[in-house]
Amino acid sequence: MTKQDTLNAKLNIKDISFLNSIRSIAVIGSSKRSDYSFLRRHAEMFKGPVYAVHPTATEIRGFDDGTQNKIYSSVELIPEDIDYVFISTPASKILEVIDGCVKKGVKLASIFTAGLADLGTEEGEQLEKEMISKLNNSMRVLGPNCLGLFYPKKGISWRANFPSESGNVGFLAQSGGICDLVVFHGAEMGLHFSKVFSYGNGNDLDLVDLLYFLSNDPETEIILCYIEGINEGRGEALREVLAQNKKPIIFLKVGKSKSATIAAKTHTASIAGEYHLWEAVFNQYNIIEVKSVEQLIYAAKLIDCYGAFKFNSAAILVLSGGYGVVLADLLEEEGISVPPFSPEIQKQIDLKFKAVGTGTKNPLDVSGHLRNLKLVQQLIELALSDDAIDGIITALPTFYLSYGSKDGRRNQFSGFENPVSKVMSLGHKYNKPIIVIMQGTIYPKTREIFATKLNEAKIAVFNDPSEFLSILPKISKYSERVKKKKIN
Amino acid sequence: MTKQDTLNAKLNIKDISFLNSIRSIAVIGSSKRSDYSFLRRHAEMFKGPVYAVHPTATEIRGFDDGTQNKIYSSVELIPEDIDYVFISTPASKILEVIDGCVKKGVKLASIFTAGLADLGTEEGEQLEKEMISKLNNSMRVLGPNCLGLFYPKKGISWRANFPSESGNVGFLAQSGGICDLVVFHGAEMGLHFSKVFSYGNGNDLDLVDLLYFLSNDPETEIILCYIEGINEGRGEALREVLAQNKKPIIFLKVGKSKSATIAAKTHTASIAGEYHLWEAVFNQYNIIEVKSVEQLIYAAKLIDCYGAFKFNSAAILVLSGGYGVVLADLLEEEGISVPPFSPEIQKQIDLKFKAVGTGTKNPLDVSGHLRNLKLVQQLIELALSDDAIDGIITALPTFYLSYGSKDGRRNQFSGFENPVSKVMSLGHKYNKPIIVIMQGTIYPKTREIFATKLNEAKIAVFNDPSEFLSILPKISKYSERVKKKKIN
Repeated sequence: MTKQDTLNAKLNIKDISFLNSIRSIAVIGSSKRSDYSFLRRHAEMFKGPVYAVHPTATEIRGFDDGTQNKIYSSVELIPEDIDYVFISTPASKILEVIDGCVKKGVKLASIFTAGLADLGTEEGEQLEKEMISKLNNSMRVLGPNCLGLFYPKKGISWRANFPSESGNVGFLAQSGGICDLVVFHGAEMGLHFSKVFSYGNGNDLDLVDLLYFLSNDPETEIILCYIEGINEGRGEALREVLAQNKKPIIFLKVGKSKSATIAAKTHTASIAGEYHLWEAVFNQYNIIEVKSVEQLIYAAKLIDCYGAFKFNSAAILVLSGGYGVVLADLLEEEGISVPPFSPEIQKQIDLKFKAVGTGTKNPLDVSGHLRNLKLVQQLIELALSDDAIDGIITALPTFYLSYGSKDGRRNQFSGFENPVSKVMSLGHKYNKPIIVIMQGTIYPKTREIFATKLNEAKIAVFNDPSEFLSILPKISKYSERVKKKKIN
Repeated sequence: MTKQDTLNAKLNIKDISFLNSIRSIAVIGSSKRSDYSFLRRHAEMFKGPVYAVHPTATEIRGFDDGTQNKIYSSVELIPEDIDYVFISTPASKILEVIDGCVKKGVKLASIFTAGLADLGTEEGEQLEKEMISKLNNSMRVLGPNCLGLFYPKKGISWRANFPSESGNVGFLAQSGGICDLVVFHGAEMGLHFSKVFSYGNGNDLDLVDLLYFLSNDPETEIILCYIEGINEGRGEALREVLAQNKKPIIFLKVGKSKSATIAAKTHTASIAGEYHLWEAVFNQYNIIEVKSVEQLIYAAKLIDCYGAFKFNSAAILVLSGGYGVVLADLLEEEGISVPPFSPEIQKQIDLKFKAVGTGTKNPLDVSGHLRNLKLVQQLIELALSDDAIDGIITALPTFYLSYGSKDGRRNQFSGFENPVSKVMSLGHKYNKPIIVIMQGTIYPKTREIFATKLNEAKIAVFNDPSEFLSILPKISKYSERVKKKKIN
């Protein structure tokens, strides 16, 4: 036993490192009435055979005909070893099913079944306690009252239409609905996931265990957490896990308000806890705390594109002088300065850029000159090479770039996304973020074409400055503390 | 002369009420090099003949062939009366062109030409002063350094691809780029415009004159303003116009920060002024102040859908308990409570709604029961009939409603936008807002179908709670003061 193992045993940090070698799955309790929905969903993406466990079904149309998939009346009758099961039997059957899985040697069960501790009754809590006691430390459980595991690399997914690409973002949430939202919205932003855990009531695997796993998982680089609360007595273990962690963690702690606290309690039977205690933990362990589900995704996107970065001062480059003024106000309100360029840089910008009626100071207003990408590139390089500037915010309105223009100059911007993405990639060369605002307006197709290209080049694109501005100072603070720690 | 006329004369409030009867337009100075771009743009939507004024051109492909449109070498040679001209000649020609227009009896000129006061030089300011002196109070001017007038009902537009529908929102802005953004983004949100003014340097028609016009314009119900600053000596007139105004005014005042002040000065040659003076004016005259261009549009959308409303307490209805908890936190942070339902209402909700694992308190979690729209309708009616509740926030994730589902149940939601929009319209029956959050996620088509339907039914749909939450308390405050004024 290593020193770490001993510590983990003392702190009851449960090991699920076997996840990376799951080879077989079974789905237990999918009903005919729902057309075996959970079974079909898990069968859609999984790369090996999927076993259905059903007491009476002998054939399931489209599932077992001509495929490797098979139906058994109990998990113990499956001839192969089973690593992972998904359970959606009624609560009344749960003890019996868990018994079978433990005997079979299943390593991990995700339990969708609700009506245990989440009921808020003594009976429900008793049933959940009894269930947990049956695990005997040989099987681990996500749930009950959860959607379980999304692990795209292995093709494990509770939804048939989750994106199949694997990525570097790990996410854990008590709420399955929040997982759905983060996976879908993340995909739209060009984010992909290593593992996503929906862990519901969390009476076996909980925040601490899953965070420990993601923190040590070689497939995960950025960790997102949605937390309603944790069980009492887990504070020390949480602190230990956070103290050891070296990856960026972005946290959404809900249940801060009174009504949210009540709702969270019904929702996944957790104690939302006192918010100021959480705040102290976030501060001590340099965790990036955000306020909404959307911000979880946006913060992950920014770090995925630019790593840890500081953004205390910005250059602005716009096509509309007015929008530059608005952005300057919004940035300064967040404590991000929009300083004048250094005199030497300003001199060079003035030389390049002498159009009438546009702004040659910071914010830079290139007005109708966007098509002169060589000029734009030179301006961006000059701005990025200025020590006074941490990064650039730019806005590319789709109505300007639109393919659907009616003014007789159709397609003048056809293919323009390629050179634009190249210019915006200069941020990576200078190791400073270039963040793009691109309103959807009435040209969603144009936006999609540009956003896809920019996402591929790891450039963050947003619809609206309110989506990301308040996150920037948080990432700056995080990054400065990481840097300080490395130096010390 | 009426009492109002005398007051307006004293305060130098200029009259442009003739706008509603513009019948003919000319475009002066569109160049061959730009393929007569401004001329073509204005010709696209205008319902009558458009006259081109060009010193040498005798034919302009696609403009004058077989249409009523004609080319003249000077505005004075056009046989018809000309009400409106758009001018984009070089600054060196501007005095001569203005002379011609005044002689011709033109009522309003929009001057795109830049390089006058906006240059920031004594020479430029002198030229602009001279130009203004030539108007002789017989012609009015928008600009110079502006895009002029968008008046969809008459088909007057500086862009060929502006939406042609007319509406109830009036907008004035110094910046033409901001006008573009507001018109396009507004259209995406289902907003339509009565008149939009881009007025640039604003040395003839300015904030005061245009606000007075919109405030008295029968085609305008909601007024939006983007302001960098006003000229000295206009404070008294502004206060008089605001004191008389009876319509909701939403203001974005930029140039609050130091760098923005400098940028605004270059941008349209206005003095951004001291922000706290503006704040006092906003407060005194019950103006809704917002912080970004996007919020201008969102605030207008909310008022367009629900009129003046208070939103101090909310019911939440979601498909994901977790998202309900997040919303409760976000709302309470804005000072909007999420109270328990009144005991009698709660009793009725409990009777209707007994599914396991979902929340029957506020926030309501209908989980997978959205398709049971009868239940959802009953819950919404109960919530709206509760005196403790000012309105409802709901979230309809597109991945749930998607038409593109891969799980073998394609099109289960086909046409579902119709009953959903009917249920969400219950807000109008109870005179309480129902605000919908619908993330784009990876199903933009589904979102478009639902958003179009909901926009038609005057239901506000947003992508993200951060878009509108901070606006709600501002509208509440505005509405309560309007109500108080009516009672007193």
